[in-house]
Amino acid sequence: MNTLKVKSYEHSYDIYIEKKLRFKAGDQLNKEYSQIAIVTDEHVSQLYLEDVKQSIDQKCKSFIIPSGEQSKSLTKYEEIQKYLLNNNFDRHSAIIALGGGVVGDLAGFVAATYMRGIDFIQVPTTLLAHDSSVGGKVGINLLDTKNILGSFYPPQAVIYDTEMLQSLNEQELRSGFAEMVKHGFIFNVDLLNELKGINTIDPSHPLFDQWLIKSLSVKKHFVEQDEHEGNIRRFLNFGHTLGHAIESTKSHVTHGECVMYGMLFAIYLSDCINDKDEKLFNEELVNWVKNLGFPLNLINISDISTVSDKMLNDKKNSNQFINFVLLNDLGEPFVSPFSIEKIEEHLKAFLDLKALKGV
Amino acid sequence: MNTLKVKSYEHSYDIYIEKKLRFKAGDQLNKEYSQIAIVTDEHVSQLYLEDVKQSIDQKCKSFIIPSGEQSKSLTKYEEIQKYLLNNNFDRHSAIIALGGGVVGDLAGFVAATYMRGIDFIQVPTTLLAHDSSVGGKVGINLLDTKNILGSFYPPQAVIYDTEMLQSLNEQELRSGFAEMVKHGFIFNVDLLNELKGINTIDPSHPLFDQWLIKSLSVKKHFVEQDEHEGNIRRFLNFGHTLGHAIESTKSHVTHGECVMYGMLFAIYLSDCINDKDEKLFNEELVNWVKNLGFPLNLINISDISTVSDKMLNDKKNSNQFINFVLLNDLGEPFVSPFSIEKIEEHLKAFLDLKALKGV
Repeated sequence: MNTLKVKSYEHSYDIYIEKKLRFKAGDQLNKEYSQIAIVTDEHVSQLYLEDVKQSIDQKCKSFIIPSGEQSKSLTKYEEIQKYLLNNNFDRHSAIIALGGGVVGDLAGFVAATYMRGIDFIQVPTTLLAHDSSVGGKVGINLLDTKNILGSFYPPQAVIYDTEMLQSLNEQELRSGFAEMVKHGFIFNVDLLNELKGINTIDPSHPLFDQWLIKSLSVKKHFVEQDEHEGNIRRFLNFGHTLGHAIESTKSHVTHGECVMYGMLFAIYLSDCINDKDEKLFNEELVNWVKNLGFPLNLINISDISTVSDKMLNDKKNSNQFINFVLLNDLGEPFVSPFSIEKIEEHLKAFLDLKALKGV
Repeated sequence: MNTLKVKSYEHSYDIYIEKKLRFKAGDQLNKEYSQIAIVTDEHVSQLYLEDVKQSIDQKCKSFIIPSGEQSKSLTKYEEIQKYLLNNNFDRHSAIIALGGGVVGDLAGFVAATYMRGIDFIQVPTTLLAHDSSVGGKVGINLLDTKNILGSFYPPQAVIYDTEMLQSLNEQELRSGFAEMVKHGFIFNVDLLNELKGINTIDPSHPLFDQWLIKSLSVKKHFVEQDEHEGNIRRFLNFGHTLGHAIESTKSHVTHGECVMYGMLFAIYLSDCINDKDEKLFNEELVNWVKNLGFPLNLINISDISTVSDKMLNDKKNSNQFINFVLLNDLGEPFVSPFSIEKIEEHLKAFLDLKALKGV
């Protein structure tokens, strides 16, 4: 089996990657727990809950939440905590998060704070969750602000059955694929070039699991060196500054679609700063992204002020400056602060680019 | 100034102990924060909020909660989080907990989880909080279960103005004094003997600050070696197994009064197990405790089943066994599991003791 070991502050944990792993998820638990609660959502529970449950020969309950971002709430957090308490979950119990990012973030924050922390195992079911399930960031939303309440709480293990990715639709695949591309841009140029060779995101591609492992290795690299995001972990925000802002104002677009758009802008911005002859932002890149189905019309001129307000309110920014992760070159990220006025100028110019308008 | 440095997983922090320290609390903050929120309660705010506020020459707001245990709720937690968010507190802001254990536990849990953790400074105002402010345990209650939601989140500093202890009433002083006595029993027999020399708990006693420092040093010793309570930190629960159970069923008695009673029982139980000639539980001990005003009639025979149920539900116990911290000898704690039946038997015999009945 493909295994990556991630070192974290308090313990190391393994990421297991293999097709059909859900049928033997129980084998990867290396402890006897007093009880286990599988937290999952309505959609995933219908597809995979029984498979996972049957693989576990320990005392096991399940808690099903509505699918979607609105479940990352304090209300849902409280509900699960009461469920654990009423069902006598003790310090030697564990939570399995079976699902995408919403399930992982919510269930992880519950695990992080129930009795000051019980064991927590991630079983990601989406492509995007290959990214979010590693690194220990867990949390919920409050007053429309994403992940404002949370902890750094690494899982005990990540059990990743890549066969489950085949049930995702194209938009969901794009959402996770953007993070793989990001890992290529900021660290692994070989991965980036391999990904650039495909025209369709197909998890059954014979090399797909290997690309995923390369992508996970980049995430591992950054979180091992800077778990609490004081320094280089910030590079993982490449594309996310603008991406998050768009995501919070638009529905019907996925995280990864917004991040891909944000990366294009960050690459464009890098060119403006670097002033080198060879540009990172070029037609070939835009066409590839477009062919994969990523929308390139996420915002227009009239959205600029809303989006820049959102960027200013992001918890990663302070005062009147917005920190952007840019590239010196492929695989060479750095952080640069911009005034809000400067960013609005650059955004206007970016929206005016022929390549982006599909001309 | 008296200073103790406590090493914790992620950072070391200082405990500053001195009379009138509240007037220069700001000097002990060794960072420039974007904003500071002082969380305090209605009672303490009237006495000391202005002093502390004036000592801080940084941007500073305050949030006042009702006094008492009922403030350790998810509702109050949410209120403070919304306050921080609405007032644009960012990652570089801090929370000061000015008050006793309730304020420290609640404000600490808020700080631990706002934006995955902002700085947190403890300014304890009670004798009991000399204990709770060190060691990083923060949390709130849910469904009448104490501290069921929480984190390990060490403060950046503990600023302890022991002059503030002089505004406490006798019962509040007893509450904190019991923890000092506990630290004597489990680790520092010299401290125990010094404390046994007094007949009244008086924070203006010339040696009082030194006793407090000795008490804090014991706490420091245990939490440094076992921050997350996997091992010897459990010894700090001496007297707490029965104490917590009584506390959760009785009003009008303080934490420390219950712990003192729990310690007497644990000492009695130690004698039963040790079977040595020289008994740790003796009339001299009971008389000293009684003279200090500690109630010795906290439960009677009819309370036994309620209290043993509570002990079973404690998050520190599992299955049908209750873990008790006992003493091999003064300063030599160990943990021993008891069946519920055995404990009920011992409790009956304990309640029947002449010394306890005040005969």
